[in-house]
Amino acid sequence: MRENEVKKLLREASIKEGDFIEIHMGEKTYRGVLLPSHAFSQSDIIIKLESGYNMGIVIDESVSIKLIKKKSRAEREKQPIPHDSKKPTVSLIGTGGTIASYIDYATGAVHPAGTSEEIALSVPEIFDICNLNTKVIFQKFGEDIAPPDWAKIAEETAKELNSGADGVIIPHGTDTMSYTSAALSFMLKNLSGAVVLTGSQRSSDRPSSDAFQNLLASARVAISDLGEVVVVMHGTPSSGQCYIYRGTKVRKMHSSRRDAFRSINEHPLGFVNSKVHLFPGHRKKAEGTVIADTMLNANVSLIYFHPGLSKEDFTRMAEGKDGVVVAGTGLGHVSSDIIPEIKEIVEEGTIVVMTTQCIWGRVNMNVYATGRKLMEAGVISGEDMLPEVALAKLMWVLAHFEGDEIKKMMRKNIAGEISDRTLYETYPAVDDQQNF
Amino acid sequence: MRENEVKKLLREASIKEGDFIEIHMGEKTYRGVLLPSHAFSQSDIIIKLESGYNMGIVIDESVSIKLIKKKSRAEREKQPIPHDSKKPTVSLIGTGGTIASYIDYATGAVHPAGTSEEIALSVPEIFDICNLNTKVIFQKFGEDIAPPDWAKIAEETAKELNSGADGVIIPHGTDTMSYTSAALSFMLKNLSGAVVLTGSQRSSDRPSSDAFQNLLASARVAISDLGEVVVVMHGTPSSGQCYIYRGTKVRKMHSSRRDAFRSINEHPLGFVNSKVHLFPGHRKKAEGTVIADTMLNANVSLIYFHPGLSKEDFTRMAEGKDGVVVAGTGLGHVSSDIIPEIKEIVEEGTIVVMTTQCIWGRVNMNVYATGRKLMEAGVISGEDMLPEVALAKLMWVLAHFEGDEIKKMMRKNIAGEISDRTLYETYPAVDDQQNF
Repeated sequence: MRENEVKKLLREASIKEGDFIEIHMGEKTYRGVLLPSHAFSQSDIIIKLESGYNMGIVIDESVSIKLIKKKSRAEREKQPIPHDSKKPTVSLIGTGGTIASYIDYATGAVHPAGTSEEIALSVPEIFDICNLNTKVIFQKFGEDIAPPDWAKIAEETAKELNSGADGVIIPHGTDTMSYTSAALSFMLKNLSGAVVLTGSQRSSDRPSSDAFQNLLASARVAISDLGEVVVVMHGTPSSGQCYIYRGTKVRKMHSSRRDAFRSINEHPLGFVNSKVHLFPGHRKKAEGTVIADTMLNANVSLIYFHPGLSKEDFTRMAEGKDGVVVAGTGLGHVSSDIIPEIKEIVEEGTIVVMTTQCIWGRVNMNVYATGRKLMEAGVISGEDMLPEVALAKLMWVLAHFEGDEIKKMMRKNIAGEISDRTLYETYPAVDDQQNF
Repeated sequence: MRENEVKKLLREASIKEGDFIEIHMGEKTYRGVLLPSHAFSQSDIIIKLESGYNMGIVIDESVSIKLIKKKSRAEREKQPIPHDSKKPTVSLIGTGGTIASYIDYATGAVHPAGTSEEIALSVPEIFDICNLNTKVIFQKFGEDIAPPDWAKIAEETAKELNSGADGVIIPHGTDTMSYTSAALSFMLKNLSGAVVLTGSQRSSDRPSSDAFQNLLASARVAISDLGEVVVVMHGTPSSGQCYIYRGTKVRKMHSSRRDAFRSINEHPLGFVNSKVHLFPGHRKKAEGTVIADTMLNANVSLIYFHPGLSKEDFTRMAEGKDGVVVAGTGLGHVSSDIIPEIKEIVEEGTIVVMTTQCIWGRVNMNVYATGRKLMEAGVISGEDMLPEVALAKLMWVLAHFEGDEIKKMMRKNIAGEISDRTLYETYPAVDDQQNF
């Protein structure tokens, strides 16, 4: 239906934004609050369902709309972006991603679009939690976020916190969110507030989008005591409970589920329902000035070892690089014929760090002969660091240290990326009573 | 203690192999059956605990050994490798790995060692299940198993099944077991028996080795109705229950846990305790001759996309390859600047298949603009195939088909590697009631 037809229909039913309405579509009935329409939305109207999820609806002749309850004048006269000086202030730094995307129903594809204000307007409940300063620094899909973008996000984050923001929310594409969260963890020092990356697995005008609950949970975390870079996303597919993941211990483990993110080798830092629940072991806010130490040397390869990877392949991928992160098999292995190649590049000055493609668990090059040969060749153990985290860390460390200091820093825990002890029980269990 | 001293000690206590003994070490007491010593073991003696696990013990002055119960003459006079013509016969094809390894206590490292007979002798219970033909075709660590080895294993497997074996067990290093299981799934046709890959995460003379229970469970599966290539490994860290994983839907997801293997995007095919329990959906044994169709084109790269991977890096890794499997982000993405490079290599004839580095979930290049551009560039969707499985499949398909047939076969399910529908619930859940 064309925009002016939709407007006419709503006018005839005396329905304004904020009113509680009922929509009949065939045999289905939906009840919810009419939201402001998005410039980039191709749905005709968007309602917020009682579940908290938003739903975009395309209106045709079969759809009827009924007013259930008017929004009161007092409610309506509220400013669209309220400000309450008694509340903490959170800066929202937009970078793009599905959380800022609207489906193009013409092609069925999703394009990055919208502003942080549009996001904020879809989630009026956020103003019950905090004031919001919004700023869009770029509009990129997760897969297009590159190392220079990490530096830009870190600088803007420090600027906001040093200008008085109590915390920062960074809506971000989920595809590379954990790469960015790792990089920010190394770049940002002395955090005076929580830095919360969040996103959504379903765009915000689609039924059952997770954008709104993730944003609300992120706002709660942003004003908490936390002084870390974290990812806040759905913890289970259905419930509104979100988990708080340490920026260096999180990974997207499913291509489409709302609870795609998982804490790896460590418990989450906490969870969020109507309140923030923090577990012991998180870092609290610091006093003083936040430092964004953003220098990077992005001349680093991530090589995923596999049967059939020849020594020539390896050398071609490692050649000319200042650092190489290997995602080896098991406890941190590659085939024997590659070890002399590694020895050679290490002797030429390349830093080689071993991680495991198993994702969960720890590298231990002391157990098998292959591991011991790799250590003799000068390979540094990545301990229980994720390959992606080791990549971001190596880029940062290479730009800040020289010689043996680089190796020392790669082995040292800087931002929670290396745990002393890998928590065995953080590996997701399979229910052995389950008979499928 | 030196070997002859240990022998003297046992002789003085009238203890022979097979006797039930009690060992006191400081405040701890262990009871179990004395096993034959392994040539490669550096433990002084090995006992089988009542839990079913074997334990290697180094004997010094503080250790005392007591005989509890003699093995009866009848038991002792049994052949070391019994044969019962009423029982099915299983061929055990040794390839190496931890399951055939013994710790070198002098250096603390593990070397591949032992023969399949040694393995069999440590697990006499296996002869209650089946007769065993053992054969060692090579002794390699998992990380050294290369595509030509897959062909050798497939040929030996077909030979054994075609010579009358009811099933085959392939002890294998766990590091690359799922690469081999995938390759065998494509190579072996018309299976007249189950082909069971198994291994262990702890070497067989270490306390709590999983080798024995995995071998026993594998023997039960090998004589079952199953006509598929499967991996049989511990399903939970503690219990002796093993899961049966489809060869194309399994991955090592933890570097050290005994339940390191996980079924991805699909339920396991069944589980094993004292019996084999198969779920619906498995393939049964076929009649007739097993075919090993082992031709491969191993000129394939697996490229793991990450922020900072430049188009030059990509081209360098893809150059001269007949096939490229990309482990993209999320639903199957790479950064926009790499897409023209992909288009170019596709036009030059390289087959490019997209998978997701999330591990769980399915590639869907219809959702976002990036995915649509990748499809326009000629990238084939790997659907819910694991990157490693797509790699083995592409090597096999490239050697068997030409032109558009290659693309068609990569999209088609050949050996259970592509599911019509990804089972959402096979993603391991996080208990949201858990407060850590």
